[in-house]
Amino acid sequence: MGGTMKALVKHHEGPGAEIRTVEIPSIKENEVLIQVKATTICGTDLHIYEWDDWASSRIRPPMIFGHEFSGVVAEVGSQVTNVQVGDHVSAETHIVCNECSQCMTGKNHVCRRTEILGVDRPGCFAEYVAMPAENLWKNSKELPFDIASIQEPLGNAVHTVLSGPIAGKTTAVIGCGPIGVMAVAVAKATGASRIIAIDINDYRIELAKSLGATHTINSSKEDPVQKVLELTDGDGAEVVLEMSGHPVAINQGFKMLANGGRVSMLGLPTSPVELDITNDIVFKGATIHGITGRVLFETWRQTAGLLQSGQVDLNPLITHRLSLDEFEKGFELMKSGKSGKVVLIP
Amino acid sequence: MGGTMKALVKHHEGPGAEIRTVEIPSIKENEVLIQVKATTICGTDLHIYEWDDWASSRIRPPMIFGHEFSGVVAEVGSQVTNVQVGDHVSAETHIVCNECSQCMTGKNHVCRRTEILGVDRPGCFAEYVAMPAENLWKNSKELPFDIASIQEPLGNAVHTVLSGPIAGKTTAVIGCGPIGVMAVAVAKATGASRIIAIDINDYRIELAKSLGATHTINSSKEDPVQKVLELTDGDGAEVVLEMSGHPVAINQGFKMLANGGRVSMLGLPTSPVELDITNDIVFKGATIHGITGRVLFETWRQTAGLLQSGQVDLNPLITHRLSLDEFEKGFELMKSGKSGKVVLIP
Amino acid sequence: MGGTMKALVKHHEGPGAEIRTVEIPSIKENEVLIQVKATTICGTDLHIYEWDDWASSRIRPPMIFGHEFSGVVAEVGSQVTNVQVGDHVSAETHIVCNECSQCMTGKNHVCRRTEILGVDRPGCFAEYVAMPAENLWKNSKELPFDIASIQEPLGNAVHTVLSGPIAGKTTAVIGCGPIGVMAVAVAKATGASRIIAIDINDYRIELAKSLGATHTINSSKEDPVQKVLELTDGDGAEVVLEMSGHPVAINQGFKMLANGGRVSMLGLPTSPVELDITNDIVFKGATIHGITGRVLFETWRQTAGLLQSGQVDLNPLITHRLSLDEFEKGFELMKSGKSGKVVLIP
Amino acid sequence: MGGTMKALVKHHEGPGAEIRTVEIPSIKENEVLIQVKATTICGTDLHIYEWDDWASSRIRPPMIFGHEFSGVVAEVGSQVTNVQVGDHVSAETHIVCNECSQCMTGKNHVCRRTEILGVDRPGCFAEYVAMPAENLWKNSKELPFDIASIQEPLGNAVHTVLSGPIAGKTTAVIGCGPIGVMAVAVAKATGASRIIAIDINDYRIELAKSLGATHTINSSKEDPVQKVLELTDGDGAEVVLEMSGHPVAINQGFKMLANGGRVSMLGLPTSPVELDITNDIVFKGATIHGITGRVLFETWRQTAGLLQSGQVDLNPLITHRLSLDEFEKGFELMKSGKSGKVVLIP
Repeated sequence: MGGTMKALVKHHEGPGAEIRTVEIPSIKENEVLIQVKATTICGTDLHIYEWDDWASSRIRPPMIFGHEFSGVVAEVGSQVTNVQVGDHVSAETHIVCNECSQCMTGKNHVCRRTEILGVDRPGCFAEYVAMPAENLWKNSKELPFDIASIQEPLGNAVHTVLSGPIAGKTTAVIGCGPIGVMAVAVAKATGASRIIAIDINDYRIELAKSLGATHTINSSKEDPVQKVLELTDGDGAEVVLEMSGHPVAINQGFKMLANGGRVSMLGLPTSPVELDITNDIVFKGATIHGITGRVLFETWRQTAGLLQSGQVDLNPLITHRLSLDEFEKGFELMKSGKSGKVVLIP
Repeated sequence: MGGTMKALVKHHEGPGAEIRTVEIPSIKENEVLIQVKATTICGTDLHIYEWDDWASSRIRPPMIFGHEFSGVVAEVGSQVTNVQVGDHVSAETHIVCNECSQCMTGKNHVCRRTEILGVDRPGCFAEYVAMPAENLWKNSKELPFDIASIQEPLGNAVHTVLSGPIAGKTTAVIGCGPIGVMAVAVAKATGASRIIAIDINDYRIELAKSLGATHTINSSKEDPVQKVLELTDGDGAEVVLEMSGHPVAINQGFKMLANGGRVSMLGLPTSPVELDITNDIVFKGATIHGITGRVLFETWRQTAGLLQSGQVDLNPLITHRLSLDEFEKGFELMKSGKSGKVVLIP
Repeated sequence: MGGTMKALVKHHEGPGAEIRTVEIPSIKENEVLIQVKATTICGTDLHIYEWDDWASSRIRPPMIFGHEFSGVVAEVGSQVTNVQVGDHVSAETHIVCNECSQCMTGKNHVCRRTEILGVDRPGCFAEYVAMPAENLWKNSKELPFDIASIQEPLGNAVHTVLSGPIAGKTTAVIGCGPIGVMAVAVAKATGASRIIAIDINDYRIELAKSLGATHTINSSKEDPVQKVLELTDGDGAEVVLEMSGHPVAINQGFKMLANGGRVSMLGLPTSPVELDITNDIVFKGATIHGITGRVLFETWRQTAGLLQSGQVDLNPLITHRLSLDEFEKGFELMKSGKSGKVVLIP
Repeated sequence: MGGTMKALVKHHEGPGAEIRTVEIPSIKENEVLIQVKATTICGTDLHIYEWDDWASSRIRPPMIFGHEFSGVVAEVGSQVTNVQVGDHVSAETHIVCNECSQCMTGKNHVCRRTEILGVDRPGCFAEYVAMPAENLWKNSKELPFDIASIQEPLGNAVHTVLSGPIAGKTTAVIGCGPIGVMAVAVAKATGASRIIAIDINDYRIELAKSLGATHTINSSKEDPVQKVLELTDGDGAEVVLEMSGHPVAINQGFKMLANGGRVSMLGLPTSPVELDITNDIVFKGATIHGITGRVLFETWRQTAGLLQSGQVDLNPLITHRLSLDEFEKGFELMKSGKSGKVVLIP
């Protein structure tokens, strides 16, 4: 297509980022150029912005970052057949190899050579972004662009909630960041009987309540294990969704789990965690699922279906809408812990 | 306990039934006597009342019939430990042998020697009913008796809906009798994206709509296969819940099924049905589940959980409340096709 | 690569076929040319050879047919990265669209736009064959070419056997054609407790016995339902693998099924079949799987693993090895019912 | 029945045990008295014999210990219908409550109020033992008593191996004590493609090889993680069966696991273990199963089926047969690490 565009660039090996004018990406024969209509900030973007240890070990500036977005197809490569110019799309942000054992056997969400948009290749905090055609998910034109953009993290929540039976089950959600709150909404929409949202931040706990939590626990004020056992006649939660990555919370999750229950783990602790394997895993007959990304594209289909049914309504979660130029304010909001999802419009 | 009670008795080998005064049942050491607070009429009861071929081959009058109920524990046998006098209970109506291969391996819902309450032993259309303690399900005292009574057929619907994945899936419900309509409500509560309710009776179709159907088809007026394919871009329904037992409808169900989809079959055709196994089962890679009763007691737990969450609200389905003495009116309503569930209060 | 090759061509719309000299196929950028080292005759090939109704409705002569093969990569297209010249390969014979709902959600074995090698595009009864790179399965160089060629139908058997639990289960295999016999071998290798092989042809029954059947029934001589019930104390077979496609045998399969059991159906009846849905599916709480092709590529991986473990040894099943020029003898053997797999070497 | 019998009694709170003459247990109406024909020593018995911390916190001497056995029914209570005098039986050693959430929903193997034979009630190191009738498993009279006795720990192995897919999968078994070696045999019989047995004891490694391991690693001599990655082209083991309970070995198990793989954990670490949740569970998309006891009685049925098929042959594992009077020698052998299963004949 040619020409230039505005983009938010991680410009150096240190904190911050800057708006630059760069060339619009050129696309290969099996790629697609998308005009970005909405992007949303993920916790990963904040790590890159603030330049923590993980970011400095993985990111090579200068690079456009950002990976959650929705937009309109602007140009397609010569071999592309699945979308056309004008289609509304979002994108799976994990670009997989299609050749490893996992990709060959229906597990490409844990492809051993995954590249991530906005981490390993130029991202979507820009007016345009290039993607492999096979990564695109076509949206209904009725779906608002901001909701369409957060289908990617919503997919994480859907994958976590639906990694085992949920209907009719007492469910604890540990950690009420945006994906945790989405998990509350998804558990509600898919029939969890009781949804106990647990965090230490009252703003987030309120958000969880507004998205469907039937019970909430501020674990800095009361013992979540004891509270969950009380609520369940000593039985515990049949499903625990671990969205916090915090070592203490993880152990509380296992202690509040009912015998024969399931723990689905999405949160990422920053160092190894001690677990009481004998009592909390073996004797409980627990099932544990590590959750990475989204099952391609089954999770996307479930996610789109849940939005379509109207029972998952994420509007209360989108707390701020800014222009891309206001990125500094966006990252401040993310840091404050007093936001849901923050939308940036390029 | 002793004494007498009022009961609705199938008194002879022919149509009808009559109210009689009979002895209150005495209980064995592992049985429980329940004071019946609400009973509901099932299609099976209508077969018995009208004395069709099945009834005449299976029922031995005189016998109290009826199997859906809720009540309060009035007396417990000497070995009973799971309930106490005063507890609110409903009952699993399949009394299983606990010794066959199925009972030994977690499949007692298909026990080879199942006895059914109100069919093979005296039923619940009476002031009191005796049950094995192991068949009882304890209800919350907040649960209204009429809703508590229809947990048994609701369990059929829950078993049908949750016999495979449902969240985010396009679901067709074929046959909108009471259990079909319950299946609509359960599919809604557990995250089905679109719920297409199909029947030939507009009264029932309206009931399905009020319980959560997103689309409805009167298959006497339009071709349900073509309509479902149109709604799904030619893909078909990912889940088909067959609640009709009608040969034409069953075949339509298979034709509207998406490749790789699931058909859960609860409806009971009265004679063998021709199926296009090659095209509709093998080439589609279909999964079919025959659904009998309720998984003991996992389905009851799911059912109670869904009622507790408030997302399954069956009040619109309870269209008539009568006293047991008005049984004739109740059976007339059932025959008319213009009723949901009919409650009888002893 | 250019040049000419020998190929077996379905040359006209009628019975028979003829050896011709044709051009070696040219390949696209994402395709691979394979030198065929062994091909095997499938029942489908016999339909094409004999020109039955199905063949005349689907095949457009002149066309090279045949789809089971193994060989060595001779040339790769410019975009191919998964195989190299000299690699030993077999091929998945279903070429899928990668864009339909099924392909997008891990069910591409039931892709709605599947093309089949040797049916919809030129096949492998030739010295060379062209395939999309993504359809190739790399073989160990220790695997003999003839065994490598029958991995494709073996994959059908593996898919059928492993579509549900099998270890420790009493299993009936109905129909002992080559894939049925392979199913016997796979069930043996994966821990079925008893394997009851059923056919009307004593040659095939003997073949099933040599591959691991623990019991055999000639259903033209004794009632297979009664026999299976006797063997199982009246319980029935927990797993029934339907490989015959015959209406009577299919119904026998359902009658011999244990309550709560599984029927996996691969056989293709030529017209609709009457089933007793009420008694044989609903009341039994049966699970039925329609089996098409192989799960890509999970089934291939399982298949290769089972061959590698040495517990599936198909050598007794390869009863004849001929040169491609002897194709008439090969098809005669297939027709006779007195052969296992027939290998043709180009 | 009355009279006295010989029994091995944990007679005091300290190491050792002694043979005593005690009364033959009397049975309740739903219990059965069994004449013990063979018992086998479990690691738990060794803990009791040696009087470690766990034993001193749980066991109340004097008590007959031992829980693995087989025998012949000598007497049945008045309500018993599932077995008769003269039947050959083994027993599930977990006596469950039948009333908790787990017991009510098909998960009684993790009953919250489980009592264990020989731990919480008098055991089977005796001429007779009393059991609830519902805990009995009827054996074929052809099954030798010593093999029948080790069905209980074999059930642990079957539960571990079959807690997820195994056929065609590369499987690592960590820890080759008796149950680990049984897991090797079960994995072999159920179609694992490669079975890599890992221990630090060459005697046990040899035992694993004789029961079907295709590869072995002495992890005191070479790095098992590197070795497994080499064997699998860097992919790792698709299934890891953790039978050791050792912290280092557990972490090695997670490091050698393929992305998307399964870890089934039976081994019991004596204190909490640090796990790299982020890299080894979440990013791997791992599934973890805690394994307790046997699924009642599905695991027993699978176990009996695998023995019946002849593909699991545990004779090489029974290394010593002693009389009950030789118990001291038996426990010495268990301690030495140079034994498989040790049988004691009362």
